[in-house]
Amino acid sequence: EALRYLSTLRFSEDDLAYLESTGLFQTKFLDYLKGVRFTGEVHALPEGSIFFKDEPVLEVSGPIIEAQLAETFIINAVSLQTLIASKAARSFHVARGRPLIDFSLRRDQGTDAGLKVARASYLAGFQGTSNVLAGKLYGLPIFGTMAHSYITSFPREIEAFRVFARLFPGITTLLIDTYDNIQGAHKAALVAKEMEARGERMRYVRLDSGDIAAISQEVRKILDTEGLDYVRILASGGFDEFKMARVLAAGGRVDSFAVGTKMGVSADAPYFDCAYKLVKYGGRPVMKLSTGKVTLVDKKQIQRRYDDKGRMLRDTIALRDEVAPDAAPLLQQFMAGGRLTRPLPTLQESREYFLSQFALLPEPYKAIEEPAPYPVDLSPGLQDLQARVEREIHQRELGEM
Amino acid sequence: EALRYLSTLRFSEDDLAYLESTGLFQTKFLDYLKGVRFTGEVHALPEGSIFFKDEPVLEVSGPIIEAQLAETFIINAVSLQTLIASKAARSFHVARGRPLIDFSLRRDQGTDAGLKVARASYLAGFQGTSNVLAGKLYGLPIFGTMAHSYITSFPREIEAFRVFARLFPGITTLLIDTYDNIQGAHKAALVAKEMEARGERMRYVRLDSGDIAAISQEVRKILDTEGLDYVRILASGGFDEFKMARVLAAGGRVDSFAVGTKMGVSADAPYFDCAYKLVKYGGRPVMKLSTGKVTLVDKKQIQRRYDDKGRMLRDTIALRDEVAPDAAPLLQQFMAGGRLTRPLPTLQESREYFLSQFALLPEPYKAIEEPAPYPVDLSPGLQDLQARVEREIHQRELGEM
Repeated sequence: EALRYLSTLRFSEDDLAYLESTGLFQTKFLDYLKGVRFTGEVHALPEGSIFFKDEPVLEVSGPIIEAQLAETFIINAVSLQTLIASKAARSFHVARGRPLIDFSLRRDQGTDAGLKVARASYLAGFQGTSNVLAGKLYGLPIFGTMAHSYITSFPREIEAFRVFARLFPGITTLLIDTYDNIQGAHKAALVAKEMEARGERMRYVRLDSGDIAAISQEVRKILDTEGLDYVRILASGGFDEFKMARVLAAGGRVDSFAVGTKMGVSADAPYFDCAYKLVKYGGRPVMKLSTGKVTLVDKKQIQRRYDDKGRMLRDTIALRDEVAPDAAPLLQQFMAGGRLTRPLPTLQESREYFLSQFALLPEPYKAIEEPAPYPVDLSPGLQDLQARVEREIHQRELGEM
Repeated sequence: EALRYLSTLRFSEDDLAYLESTGLFQTKFLDYLKGVRFTGEVHALPEGSIFFKDEPVLEVSGPIIEAQLAETFIINAVSLQTLIASKAARSFHVARGRPLIDFSLRRDQGTDAGLKVARASYLAGFQGTSNVLAGKLYGLPIFGTMAHSYITSFPREIEAFRVFARLFPGITTLLIDTYDNIQGAHKAALVAKEMEARGERMRYVRLDSGDIAAISQEVRKILDTEGLDYVRILASGGFDEFKMARVLAAGGRVDSFAVGTKMGVSADAPYFDCAYKLVKYGGRPVMKLSTGKVTLVDKKQIQRRYDDKGRMLRDTIALRDEVAPDAAPLLQQFMAGGRLTRPLPTLQESREYFLSQFALLPEPYKAIEEPAPYPVDLSPGLQDLQARVEREIHQRELGEM
């Protein structure tokens, strides 16, 4: 998406008229903007790649103004989708194969986030989304169930269940917590038997509140007693990887989770502290020394090493041209002269790539509480250059007054 | 915005073709969607109103399908802007008149959020934003400073300062932390004196890292020693109301804050738990009893009482038609028959309305740590109806199996 933005970057007449109206800019600059296009090159990790702290994700080379105009959009696009994909991958990890559905749209931070959350969570292993527009735009599988208002609009809950089962016999999922989960489960079982008599099969009952671990066990028993072992249990309501892990550890009998708000805004880590910094200018490697925000100089590459079973072992951040015959270089060239140099992967391909890579990441790094830190070091070449540039800046900037 | 959505709600041919392609819907339903328009009425709080837990913000009446189609968008729009405006209002409160600027765009959750954060923070008392598109769309004042990359692109920091001061003499704000704040302040003072010699005045120096309370005091001294008491100090970097309060309590000499990520994603409370629930259907008040999610029945009104000095005293959530001569009703009718019944306030008007109301809210309720809970109760009429409906549901739904 960042790449598509770069390749279509331009200012409309309307934009320029607004900028002129602010009185902040010179006419010469506005004339320049009229014709501006991105003409540089981009190296980036393919979408779906797994990366770690301090590793470069995307490097843009080109005239500084072109690279600078794109800064905010690139940070915004890369950081949101990385954030959500990371949060969603943690749920995917905990769910151990149980299907996960994105139900977050209504509480996502805006409509653009709603689309990107659906996309990023699908990339990270979710089965689909309740966001129908995302389904349309990205070709994602869409899922829905019934609303509480559907049930309360009927005089009796069981009538709501019966009508719904008649209308959607192939995809019947009944929400059973509107008044009481256990009573709801008995009514759902009754309707499921009525469906059986018509040669149909109910798919899911959905739990949306209360102590899901305990309730799901009771509901499972009610269903099994009626011979409805094929009716599965979907749980929703405040789920993320932590609640999911608690419910499963407590013996919850949940077959599928609808994951909403907490994944959709990445509630425990709602922003991703990525930066877009100048690392080289006019052939000169540069950095800033601001407290706690020191940057790594020059064009870089990530070298990844695997163990003899093919599992990820450790990464080295190196200068772009440093060679390491035993490591795989991760950043690839995607643009040159302002044009794509290779076709972008489809979302489906990125999802498969992510899932294949995630399987190669050893368990300790995937723990949702106190994960082991994945080893990332700096190459000797990068360390030397970094130290040299830092020395030069100290001499030049801090001694001169 | 929710109202604008309702009044323009419709499905395009393209949308309908997609829905048909999913195979989930009957042709009759899709034909209905083709012609669907919102025909109902809406009562809502005017934008900029202050409201509290459990209070209704917006009530939609109309054919259930029309009201239901709008659910997700309304929750999304109302909750994000409420969330951000609340977070921003806390900064506004702590800043005590110091100008605040929204710098959050790059880390906001998507581009739509970027726009809405700029808008909502302006409504809650901010002076403007660095989001130029939001400036264009909403008419907000826009602000910018220089980037670290601007400085590192020059061989020496002081050259960057000099060139910038020449290019933007009217709005010179120099970022002084790239290599070292104190050295940066000395260089900025030098450039400010050069500007004075040309009859110009530097406006701000900007601090972006480190111990802002201590550094700002040192920088203030450096500037004052040079007779530059008119050059003000702008601070940025991880600010929200908490960090702002700490820096000011520690004697920080900051004249203005750029507030970014933590406000833009409301980092300590990244979602607003609002719901959109069916409260009445076919003349029958309805509710759900799900654990921890019980809803209040029927159409409602908020009655607000003020003390004899005009300050907000307490609220009562009542049935729509209950009369309270000593209280102000807060929900107003905005739509009838699918059309606006009054002009929507401009953003400027909403901002002024918010600021006037916020001034009437006593200090204890505005404390950023351990605020006093503002008193909200239920009217006798609402309590009675709520109890009656709950009894009826218990008899009907929980005794019948």
